[in-house]
Amino acid sequence: MADAGLANTGGPVSGRSSGYRTAGREFFTTRTVADALAGFRPRRRTGTETVPLAAALRRIPAGPVTAPHPLPGFARSTVDGYAVRAADTYGVSDGLPGYLTVIGAVRMGAEPDTTVTAGSVVEMPTGGVIPPGADAVVMVEYTAEAMPGTIEVVRPVAPGEGTVRADEDARPGDELVPGGRPLRPQDLGMLAAAGVTSATVHAKPVVTIFSTGDEVVPPGVAELKPGQVRDATASALAALVADAGGEPVLGGIVPDDPGALEKALRGALPASDLLVISAGSSVGARDETANAVALLGPPGIWCHGLAIKPGKPTLLAECDGVPVIGLPGNPRSALVVFRMVGMPVVRLVGGCTVPPPEPSTRAVLSRDLASASGRLDIVQVKINEGVADPVFGLSALLSVLTEADGYIVIPQEATGLDAGSEVDVILYA
Amino acid sequence: MADAGLANTGGPVSGRSSGYRTAGREFFTTRTVADALAGFRPRRRTGTETVPLAAALRRIPAGPVTAPHPLPGFARSTVDGYAVRAADTYGVSDGLPGYLTVIGAVRMGAEPDTTVTAGSVVEMPTGGVIPPGADAVVMVEYTAEAMPGTIEVVRPVAPGEGTVRADEDARPGDELVPGGRPLRPQDLGMLAAAGVTSATVHAKPVVTIFSTGDEVVPPGVAELKPGQVRDATASALAALVADAGGEPVLGGIVPDDPGALEKALRGALPASDLLVISAGSSVGARDETANAVALLGPPGIWCHGLAIKPGKPTLLAECDGVPVIGLPGNPRSALVVFRMVGMPVVRLVGGCTVPPPEPSTRAVLSRDLASASGRLDIVQVKINEGVADPVFGLSALLSVLTEADGYIVIPQEATGLDAGSEVDVILYA
Repeated sequence: MADAGLANTGGPVSGRSSGYRTAGREFFTTRTVADALAGFRPRRRTGTETVPLAAALRRIPAGPVTAPHPLPGFARSTVDGYAVRAADTYGVSDGLPGYLTVIGAVRMGAEPDTTVTAGSVVEMPTGGVIPPGADAVVMVEYTAEAMPGTIEVVRPVAPGEGTVRADEDARPGDELVPGGRPLRPQDLGMLAAAGVTSATVHAKPVVTIFSTGDEVVPPGVAELKPGQVRDATASALAALVADAGGEPVLGGIVPDDPGALEKALRGALPASDLLVISAGSSVGARDETANAVALLGPPGIWCHGLAIKPGKPTLLAECDGVPVIGLPGNPRSALVVFRMVGMPVVRLVGGCTVPPPEPSTRAVLSRDLASASGRLDIVQVKINEGVADPVFGLSALLSVLTEADGYIVIPQEATGLDAGSEVDVILYA
Repeated sequence: MADAGLANTGGPVSGRSSGYRTAGREFFTTRTVADALAGFRPRRRTGTETVPLAAALRRIPAGPVTAPHPLPGFARSTVDGYAVRAADTYGVSDGLPGYLTVIGAVRMGAEPDTTVTAGSVVEMPTGGVIPPGADAVVMVEYTAEAMPGTIEVVRPVAPGEGTVRADEDARPGDELVPGGRPLRPQDLGMLAAAGVTSATVHAKPVVTIFSTGDEVVPPGVAELKPGQVRDATASALAALVADAGGEPVLGGIVPDDPGALEKALRGALPASDLLVISAGSSVGARDETANAVALLGPPGIWCHGLAIKPGKPTLLAECDGVPVIGLPGNPRSALVVFRMVGMPVVRLVGGCTVPPPEPSTRAVLSRDLASASGRLDIVQVKINEGVADPVFGLSALLSVLTEADGYIVIPQEATGLDAGSEVDVILYA
């Protein structure tokens, strides 16, 4: 039953939680979004797998990767010029150049075959190995050929100048990339530099998505019968799951029948790291979802009802070690809620402890927005030259989301926002 | 030769361009980054292909997609309640309820088989088809069963209340998604709702990446010989190409030999939408890149030298209709420049006219930063509790990029930034 579950991890039931009546039905455990993010923390984590670097972008390293050896591995020149003993350049100037003998040249990718001695230099390309005896490289700009085989140097260099140390990019054991943070392009470069050609990462969480509702038909149905609607939510949820690093699996459309839903969920449970059900939109369908989830296994339902608009009829549960999210039937509500509380669960289960930053912008609100205290209000907006213009429309309308450039979160304690206020807009990417 | 090319499209050669000497060699056509973004606009665009929705996330629609029919397609209830003639509820209140006869019930996904007449109502689930005769739905919360088959209604409804119109989400011909903007999760949902199960999108630009340098070996080489370095840049560039919507192809490592490079580039030209060369780091290697590119075909080199640090020795060209980007040899410089000017070219060629927003944040600079006027300075920073702390280090060091959370752009006209200034930080995702 819908009240079967209690908090399985994390904090106690919030003081804000309450049973209240809506449409004649009980929402037994209502939570705030903040409570859900802090308290609904299923312990499930995916296992690990090893992938080649070319497939590792945005994957989550299972642990830190450290440098197996120093990088770059040898002292290198950072400029084109001449490897010298720095002391040989002390005191030189435009008016009083130093004269040094060129005794060889370093080739790229090759070991120097010459040792720099007092009064001598070796020609250096950028990136070449600093030859023995030299402790600096003087830039070619500060030299000129005085006569064949001899250069004049007009600027002194300090020891180390014009070079990188053999371990300046990484010492052995240095952390090249941390665990838990999605791999970025430069991280792949660093691993490649260190000769680390594969990465041990968390497996992508398998997220099985069910749609329910007698009225719902697959998107491929060209001609609808009266009362039928195509399943818009599953395609969009699959994309959000992928954005959060998960592997979406479409479980299909289940009719409004408690037995059918329980059977479908039970069948998917063993192969899933997370179950997502976009519920039928009617109250009866929502109850059927709760009933089916409650039968799946302990500890059961953590909350049924979130203090968020749109998206109140949201269910969070954990059944036999698998987190389960029941979403409202309206596509728009479902997508808003999944972004707020579902994507964090995908990341959690997939081992992502450092969520990637989201695009956002500051904007000036074009008009007053009302909001009820005690819940988050998510308001879709269009952005025009720094002005955030709310896109209004019923929560049944998906077009409100497709027209929007992003959304504003009106905090739980606020009772609204005034026209002209500066707001943070999370932008859709 | 390096000065073979002139602007092939867009604006005239900027007044800021100049020939200047560096390391004893000419940079014949130096441009600002702003000039490059505005003026280097190759005409090449990829063709189109049709992909299923499940593979269409972030792909670029070749044109707007319009609604083939009205959505949702029928007038629907937005609440659980009773379909009524609104006029039958006028004047009712808690003290003076209206009494109406329940003559049927609408089932989800089915056509109503009852017509609502004066004094009668039909039970409605959220999302059900509004039956003939009804023009509103009164919420169940404002009703109660008076006796079997009769309800009392305590609040009046206006016509249209509790419903969405048949075309309220989209009218036929309405734009569901625009051309040129990467498809977002909710866009896929909207297309699914409209029965559009595939999308005609720009093909991903094929970006062939070459690395050059006698010192460069593949990342898989476990034991380096003295002077050798592994190819870090290609792996990271491939990831940036993918992030920009391109299809990276690793062309491999080409030795510092003009003939070999020209041959490799020429071989890749027919199958590429963009060629990227991460040059050897020495001046000679840079010149070899320019020489090889200049031989590839007209119109040739657009600029050789960008007013940016790090990243000055950057080459932009167009050869036989294919844009070509020559990057500096230092991995860090190469990645900074490719992010600034390369990713926009990948998007341009791939038909993306609305680049996705980038994550960013405002932060307070922890210390003074010097900068030369007349060029962009890109400074890597770590962010700690709203403070941006520059990560310093030679441009040869990749660790500067992996340690950074993002970067600051010091504008061309600025000569530095003071500690305590508020700065915009572009965050790495």
